[in-house]
Amino acid sequence: MDPSSNYASDPYTWEGLSGWKSYRTLRPFRGMYWDVRRRLPWYWSDIRDGFNYRTMAGTVRIFFINLLPALAFQLDMTRGTDGYFGINEALFSSALAALVFSTLSCQPLTVVGITGLISLFNYTVYAITEQCGIVQLYPEFICWVSIWAAITHWMAAIFNWCDYMRYITDFSSNAFGMYVGIIYMVKGFQEVTALYGESNPAAGFMALCYFFSIVMLEWIGSTVWFTPNIRKFISDYAYPIATIWWTGFSHIPGHIYNSGLLRVPHSRAFYPTIDRSWLVPFWTLPVKWVFVALPVGILLTLLFYYDHNVSSLTAQAKQFPLKKPAGFHWDFFLLGCTCFIGGIVGIPLPNGLVPQAPVHTDSLTEYKDSLVTSKEKDDDPEGGEWVQHNRKVVSATLVREQRISHFLMALAFVGFMTGPLLDVLHTIPRALFAGVFWAVGFSGLTAMNITQNLLYCLTEKRFVDPSDKRTTLKKSRILFYVFWQMMGVAFSLGVSFTRAAIGFPVIIISLIPLRWILLPRLFTEEELLILDAPTADADTVLASMGGRPTLPEVRMAEEKRRLDGGDGELGDGTGSGSSSGLGDLRSRAGFKDDEEKELERDEVREEARQAVQPTLRTGHA
Amino acid sequence: MDPSSNYASDPYTWEGLSGWKSYRTLRPFRGMYWDVRRRLPWYWSDIRDGFNYRTMAGTVRIFFINLLPALAFQLDMTRGTDGYFGINEALFSSALAALVFSTLSCQPLTVVGITGLISLFNYTVYAITEQCGIVQLYPEFICWVSIWAAITHWMAAIFNWCDYMRYITDFSSNAFGMYVGIIYMVKGFQEVTALYGESNPAAGFMALCYFFSIVMLEWIGSTVWFTPNIRKFISDYAYPIATIWWTGFSHIPGHIYNSGLLRVPHSRAFYPTIDRSWLVPFWTLPVKWVFVALPVGILLTLLFYYDHNVSSLTAQAKQFPLKKPAGFHWDFFLLGCTCFIGGIVGIPLPNGLVPQAPVHTDSLTEYKDSLVTSKEKDDDPEGGEWVQHNRKVVSATLVREQRISHFLMALAFVGFMTGPLLDVLHTIPRALFAGVFWAVGFSGLTAMNITQNLLYCLTEKRFVDPSDKRTTLKKSRILFYVFWQMMGVAFSLGVSFTRAAIGFPVIIISLIPLRWILLPRLFTEEELLILDAPTADADTVLASMGGRPTLPEVRMAEEKRRLDGGDGELGDGTGSGSSSGLGDLRSRAGFKDDEEKELERDEVREEARQAVQPTLRTGHA
Repeated sequence: MDPSSNYASDPYTWEGLSGWKSYRTLRPFRGMYWDVRRRLPWYWSDIRDGFNYRTMAGTVRIFFINLLPALAFQLDMTRGTDGYFGINEALFSSALAALVFSTLSCQPLTVVGITGLISLFNYTVYAITEQCGIVQLYPEFICWVSIWAAITHWMAAIFNWCDYMRYITDFSSNAFGMYVGIIYMVKGFQEVTALYGESNPAAGFMALCYFFSIVMLEWIGSTVWFTPNIRKFISDYAYPIATIWWTGFSHIPGHIYNSGLLRVPHSRAFYPTIDRSWLVPFWTLPVKWVFVALPVGILLTLLFYYDHNVSSLTAQAKQFPLKKPAGFHWDFFLLGCTCFIGGIVGIPLPNGLVPQAPVHTDSLTEYKDSLVTSKEKDDDPEGGEWVQHNRKVVSATLVREQRISHFLMALAFVGFMTGPLLDVLHTIPRALFAGVFWAVGFSGLTAMNITQNLLYCLTEKRFVDPSDKRTTLKKSRILFYVFWQMMGVAFSLGVSFTRAAIGFPVIIISLIPLRWILLPRLFTEEELLILDAPTADADTVLASMGGRPTLPEVRMAEEKRRLDGGDGELGDGTGSGSSSGLGDLRSRAGFKDDEEKELERDEVREEARQAVQPTLRTGHA
Repeated sequence: MDPSSNYASDPYTWEGLSGWKSYRTLRPFRGMYWDVRRRLPWYWSDIRDGFNYRTMAGTVRIFFINLLPALAFQLDMTRGTDGYFGINEALFSSALAALVFSTLSCQPLTVVGITGLISLFNYTVYAITEQCGIVQLYPEFICWVSIWAAITHWMAAIFNWCDYMRYITDFSSNAFGMYVGIIYMVKGFQEVTALYGESNPAAGFMALCYFFSIVMLEWIGSTVWFTPNIRKFISDYAYPIATIWWTGFSHIPGHIYNSGLLRVPHSRAFYPTIDRSWLVPFWTLPVKWVFVALPVGILLTLLFYYDHNVSSLTAQAKQFPLKKPAGFHWDFFLLGCTCFIGGIVGIPLPNGLVPQAPVHTDSLTEYKDSLVTSKEKDDDPEGGEWVQHNRKVVSATLVREQRISHFLMALAFVGFMTGPLLDVLHTIPRALFAGVFWAVGFSGLTAMNITQNLLYCLTEKRFVDPSDKRTTLKKSRILFYVFWQMMGVAFSLGVSFTRAAIGFPVIIISLIPLRWILLPRLFTEEELLILDAPTADADTVLASMGGRPTLPEVRMAEEKRRLDGGDGELGDGTGSGSSSGLGDLRSRAGFKDDEEKELERDEVREEARQAVQPTLRTGHA
């Protein structure tokens, strides 16, 4: 098979099929088969393309922003599960996941590890078992939850259910990103507060210093100082530089050192934290509880279905110029396997890392700083002179799509499981983890369309660029759109801090039908075309999910127009609920013969996207 | 006298005089007389112009950034003088100075109060008296130092010696600003370390939070969010908002509160901190020590001569569109009076506040946010389309020049000397003072030409605006210029941290002859025209110092050309040590008949200044 094939006409599609052949569930393994067939020809290049500076930089960056939050979540889980999950379990889980996914997955850019959500899930289940009085059965119970989750994962993969991820637009993925960003920020504060509680008073100072160091170092990448290579180097290695610096600082004898900072705890290498063998005796769980574990396992699958696949989508999102094809079904099957293994050895289950996965792709992207010349004059009607200014713009030229960075990260995790490197981890003050949470959460928050739209609405009108498509919308409509996203975020957050936390995947997932069914009735086609867009819209990505879906608002608008009669004529804004100023945009996205129409609409989408996310790159870098 | 007179032809000048009339010292009171005569006609407008929103905002801002560092320096002095100078002395001194200068001075924009340098001076003198074994005579000794200083102040004012301040260019004033900024940053760290030492471990956290709150709030003023009035309001009240917020935060029961933050100490209102009467019995000091106090007093006069007058210069610097005339001689006489009073009642001597004085003027300046339209395309030779962008530029339209803000500040200080408001001060955690030092020092550091030139040299060449005059200079020459400034900063800093600290005014002042005699021999006329400029160059300011001086590099270059022969012809770069690319600039600043030449040179200076300090405004605001 030719690696350069055209993914827009991929054979994996459900369009134009009828009868039993059109039912996904009746044709098992079809998605997985095509995922492998599509990606396998690229395997050798996935290795070969890994030998360059960018991959090296990406490896270091992703290792640090995977390791540090993983350790922090593990501290959280240790507190919440009375020590059942310790540092050795966290490292084992991260290493296992990275080894499996770097070598066997179709989407090696999606880094897999321990997230905040699995930590939340694990200690909520622990609290529930405590309430049910079976806390001594927690290891076996959570093991069965994992087994059921593995089984339902496999079902979802086999029956091609990952196809539905193509309906994910920025509406839900950015709401989820916002939710995770806020959870990270809150975790940072909880960590500092917990450290204060353990009479560790310099923690807040260290965490803030660390946070601002990272923000500063990454910000240097966006300046015009030094040379492109030097400033990228500094920004690439922001996490290692800051971690080593502040760890060193914390060991200088003085007030900070004397304040007795708590450091990462450690135990004997390669053994479970509590005294047990690695294999959980899951066969000892009473049958009654095995079946109680089933719905909990399904909830976990729902969580991973959304969380893992959104990781893959954002890691392959539209701002990255990707060439290699995706494979959602195969990867979700693999995730079932790691759930199974993770379950029976009693480690926290890994899945796609939501704020980190796009950072991985970002750090593998070759960006070019180009010079843009502008001529400027003040807006005085008499007009000043045009003065020339030079400015930097950043554009992504190429992504180093390969498996090596992910694989090296796996090896690094294996390395840190050994005694000597565990001791190295022990030197890191725990306060730095709060800083990691703030840094990762903060960069996520600023990049989300909720933030961008709110800032847009705050901006004084006259300074908005005329090329910004949102200028054709009323601010109240934009805020109304943001309102729906914020509702999703607020509900998810509300649930997360209660015992009902394990139910929150249902809320997150319900954002997809909300967007698909309710929103087209509340907003016009034009509004949604400007405010929303599929999270990943490259054919290489969509091929794995059965191709590009037709947006409901577009379909509805067309039906409306057909009903209104006329073919080349536009209904004069009737029934669309839209205000003035949209006619131009609609006519551009409107009635043409089919292909031309699709092309034009793509253009509008593209423009709208660029207008809405001008600072996405800055947010990440 | 007409307030709108032309200050370029002010009668106070020494040009064209000969014989005894040309000697400043032989014509006492001439400068003071003209200062008063020039300013008096504006007195009523100084009051009338104070009733507007901007004055209100300026009052609050200057009160906070005067009060908080003053309290912090007082803590420092208390430690360094074994409790002789306490909070009541600091408030008394600030109130006295503000009352005198707001009502009687010629330059009410120059706020007067307690600086870090007088704190340094006072505790260094304390250490010296300790070494001499007369520490019990410290009050009388420092009183005599103040009396001698008062006498030498009066002499300097009477004999018109303040005229020499017209030779101050950015070379020395920015080096001094840098020095003070660094001292402030260091003080911040010392304060945090001292608080850690007094087992006050949340101090660092609080100080950082406070610092970043202020940076953030002031930064909002530079965005395009909200409306111009709202964003200016937020930025105007950054200090009060942050101070009230974090003081409140520190009282919330919790880990921070329990950590036992130290707060501002206080004692009985209106009484000296130690048990003594307000009048120091200076007549009891043995005559021997009276004469030892003389050279120390002269050093203090040197310090104030530079520090106070540079405050006035920067408060009336070229970026502010001022209309009312200056009066250096009269104000320096007044300063002698406050030295005398301050000396005999035993309070720290006030003088012009260096980083705060320009902030005062800045907060009284009406800035206009205007829209600038730019067209932009990437620098691809094939060329993209021109895309239109809208951007904000800030320009100063008007300064509210008046006495009311200064006077209200004085009243506020008097108010805080009373019991109830002293108790309010007592609620402020001392940790915030470290944050004040960082915020004030940091905004000073970023605005200095040393920082600007270093950043210029760090910038990748292609992104530098072609209109920046520095592009015509070699980077090595710019760095060589920065080197001389840094030498001044480094020597001053070096001395400040030793027992020789009281000698540092000599170093600072020696930068003026260095600039005036050595630099024109090391740099070409063009280099200095681009890199340096008089700190205040308005005729309203220069009138008080005998008018605009001829820059030595310009005079030397002209003499050189005259020697080289020819009148309209330029020597082809010979003997000027300059490299290529300067011919154009020199020809513009070069040989024309006298008036035209002066005009053109002004233009070059203006352009060079705008090029070198593009972000000065941002730095302050």
